[in-house]
Amino acid sequence: MRFLPAELIKKKRNGFELTTDEIDFVIKSFTSGDLPDYQMSAWLMAVFFKGMTANETAVLTESMLHSGRVLDFSKLPGTAVDKHSTGGIGDKTSMIIAPMAAAAGVHVPMIAGRGLGHTGGTLDKLESIPGFRIDLSLDQFQSQVEKLGFAIIGQTKEICPADKKIYALRDVTATVESLPLICASIMSKKLAEGVGALVLDVKHGAGAFMKTIEAAETLADKLMEIGTAHRKKVAYVLSSMDQPLGRFIGNSLEMGECFSILQNRPYLSRKPEDFRDTRELCIELAGLMIWLGGGAPDRESGIQRAEQTLTSGKAWEMFEKLCHHQGGDPSKLPEAKTKHVIYADRDGFVSGFDGEKLGLAAIELGAGRVKTTDVIDPSAGLEVHAKLGDAITKGSPLYTLFANRETSFESAKQMVLAATNISLQKPHVPALITKRKVN
Amino acid sequence: MRFLPAELIKKKRNGFELTTDEIDFVIKSFTSGDLPDYQMSAWLMAVFFKGMTANETAVLTESMLHSGRVLDFSKLPGTAVDKHSTGGIGDKTSMIIAPMAAAAGVHVPMIAGRGLGHTGGTLDKLESIPGFRIDLSLDQFQSQVEKLGFAIIGQTKEICPADKKIYALRDVTATVESLPLICASIMSKKLAEGVGALVLDVKHGAGAFMKTIEAAETLADKLMEIGTAHRKKVAYVLSSMDQPLGRFIGNSLEMGECFSILQNRPYLSRKPEDFRDTRELCIELAGLMIWLGGGAPDRESGIQRAEQTLTSGKAWEMFEKLCHHQGGDPSKLPEAKTKHVIYADRDGFVSGFDGEKLGLAAIELGAGRVKTTDVIDPSAGLEVHAKLGDAITKGSPLYTLFANRETSFESAKQMVLAATNISLQKPHVPALITKRKVN
Repeated sequence: MRFLPAELIKKKRNGFELTTDEIDFVIKSFTSGDLPDYQMSAWLMAVFFKGMTANETAVLTESMLHSGRVLDFSKLPGTAVDKHSTGGIGDKTSMIIAPMAAAAGVHVPMIAGRGLGHTGGTLDKLESIPGFRIDLSLDQFQSQVEKLGFAIIGQTKEICPADKKIYALRDVTATVESLPLICASIMSKKLAEGVGALVLDVKHGAGAFMKTIEAAETLADKLMEIGTAHRKKVAYVLSSMDQPLGRFIGNSLEMGECFSILQNRPYLSRKPEDFRDTRELCIELAGLMIWLGGGAPDRESGIQRAEQTLTSGKAWEMFEKLCHHQGGDPSKLPEAKTKHVIYADRDGFVSGFDGEKLGLAAIELGAGRVKTTDVIDPSAGLEVHAKLGDAITKGSPLYTLFANRETSFESAKQMVLAATNISLQKPHVPALITKRKVN
Repeated sequence: MRFLPAELIKKKRNGFELTTDEIDFVIKSFTSGDLPDYQMSAWLMAVFFKGMTANETAVLTESMLHSGRVLDFSKLPGTAVDKHSTGGIGDKTSMIIAPMAAAAGVHVPMIAGRGLGHTGGTLDKLESIPGFRIDLSLDQFQSQVEKLGFAIIGQTKEICPADKKIYALRDVTATVESLPLICASIMSKKLAEGVGALVLDVKHGAGAFMKTIEAAETLADKLMEIGTAHRKKVAYVLSSMDQPLGRFIGNSLEMGECFSILQNRPYLSRKPEDFRDTRELCIELAGLMIWLGGGAPDRESGIQRAEQTLTSGKAWEMFEKLCHHQGGDPSKLPEAKTKHVIYADRDGFVSGFDGEKLGLAAIELGAGRVKTTDVIDPSAGLEVHAKLGDAITKGSPLYTLFANRETSFESAKQMVLAATNISLQKPHVPALITKRKVN
């Protein structure tokens, strides 16, 4: 069906609900190149201001989902399941929970993203394992999920091309921060993976996109609503991003933390119990995946099975198999040439982190990219010695910076110090997991 | 100064006031082609929703004004003056008041527009005079204003190229109806003409862009504010567009009405007094132009002088000179081959007009264009026999339709009938001029 694009922009601008055909026309004609960027960006800005009804958001998601290939794992035993996290500093759960769920017999077709801005991407972390390939074809991906139980690859051109094109435009037209657009972008990609269930980890706090629990809940509920409309099982967890997750930030450093949890072995100067927050969140998320994926009859058994995959070493075995299939050698994680320890200049308690500044410090050391064309230094990053509520004294270590070039240490040092609040009184430390919900 | 475009879109989107440098950057980089259409349209939509402060609107106008050549008539005796009307059905005052003001010794550099949509353009009306040229160069324009006292030409590429480019984008992105964008577009073009004074005719009512007197007054005040900031004398008149102005709609038909007023002679079946509303508004507007232009010491004398230019025949002489300079022969107005009279089908009073529908009927007859590439039939149009409040009986004439092809009469007839409300009680007829103000 054909419409006048300017009339559809005006209709949304004036706050009216668009029909299924109208939204489908916008998405299809933009993806094909018939609708020019300048009309799409005006429409996106109108959506930013006027929002979308639940029905409009569902239709938008549906339209984006069907802009490319849609996988189907419904013939496999159980229910294929994936996880989506809204992201934050040190968030490295994907590499742990995918093998955990797979070790419990659940199928996990995981299509992950790259890091841009201050948070690292799953693909960048996996690629710090020498030889690891994330560029399998969709057919290879599908057959590995069927054979091994799971696979982790990067976004391909065949999945949701509409989302790729729309996101690129939103990024340069100040239309990223729109709830319906965020929801449709996340859910169209996850639904295209062909999963029957989805576990969401929606972050809140200083280092997250959603600053308050309420805002995180609103987003989580809307994502769940779309999943429900597509007859998918959805569970969500709201979790705190008031401080980095775990101890390490940076690609091979974060993989090292993952291996420590999967193998129950120390990593660098850290014992596995130093990563108890990462481990707790992973057991929660993997437990939900195992339950929804059909590997356990209820949430509690799911959590139990999840923990067993760690203690038994089965999850690590699955990760080793993943590496075997996708070409990586986990025994050869690269290490940075030099490190610098940053010490506290006063006594007190760690009372807050500026997650964005910490991420920018990691980028300064080489661990991330500002532009998509930037090259990442896989072994660069930082270690967090003092976490929220920890007592520190003048001279006690706050951070260790890892890099391969000396030049960036001084500015990164200033950045991590500026990112860390130290108070005289012990602060309230929020719970890691603040809410759980299932549809 | 350079800025990140996405940051400027975001700043406006979030409701913050942009600085002079920021607005100047947007306009300059868009005009030069550095700022892509898709970012400009998102910015325009953010302006639509968040508006602009008086200062932002002034800076936007200034920036657009200086995107091209700015004329200067300040060395001429008196003050060069122009008029701007927000437009409506049958609005033909420009062709009458320009020679009136010039006949009173005032300089009038008039750059006019084409018609698009349901209202006709001054240029289209002038071009219905065989041979009339509106495409003088800016240098020819300037020298004719100096020598003859006035000239009327079309928009050139050298004047306000920013406005031309922005308007084209607004037209296809549903961002036309934004008060600050409307104000900047109008005022940048008028200020670029190099006038020292400006008379505004802001229409209100069913056939106008502004439906209420209050909305018209808000627009008029904002336009005046910008003029005042540029140290221009500004007077405005609010006038009713609840019915067509005068009796004729269509290009050569409207010129005929103008000639009738300028020569005090009948036109077709009409006597000059049938055009009393057009005449009244012209005397008001020309009176203000003569006063602000230095041809009279106060408004009352201006009005008096304006009327004298009509009764003495001096205004007609000036119009003949205009035709002599710009190549037109006013004795050879084209006439339509066929006409159809539309009669009332019941008794009552004419109680309302749908100006847009009347305009569309004129377009149906060939008098206007829907697309910029449409060709106009100069002699097509219609005559309004019964005006607001007129008593009619079944069988009395309502309209005469003029066209050169029979095919369009039937649908045009349905349109004019649908555009005309007939009531049993005599309606209230609003005053033609509802407010006058000078800065």
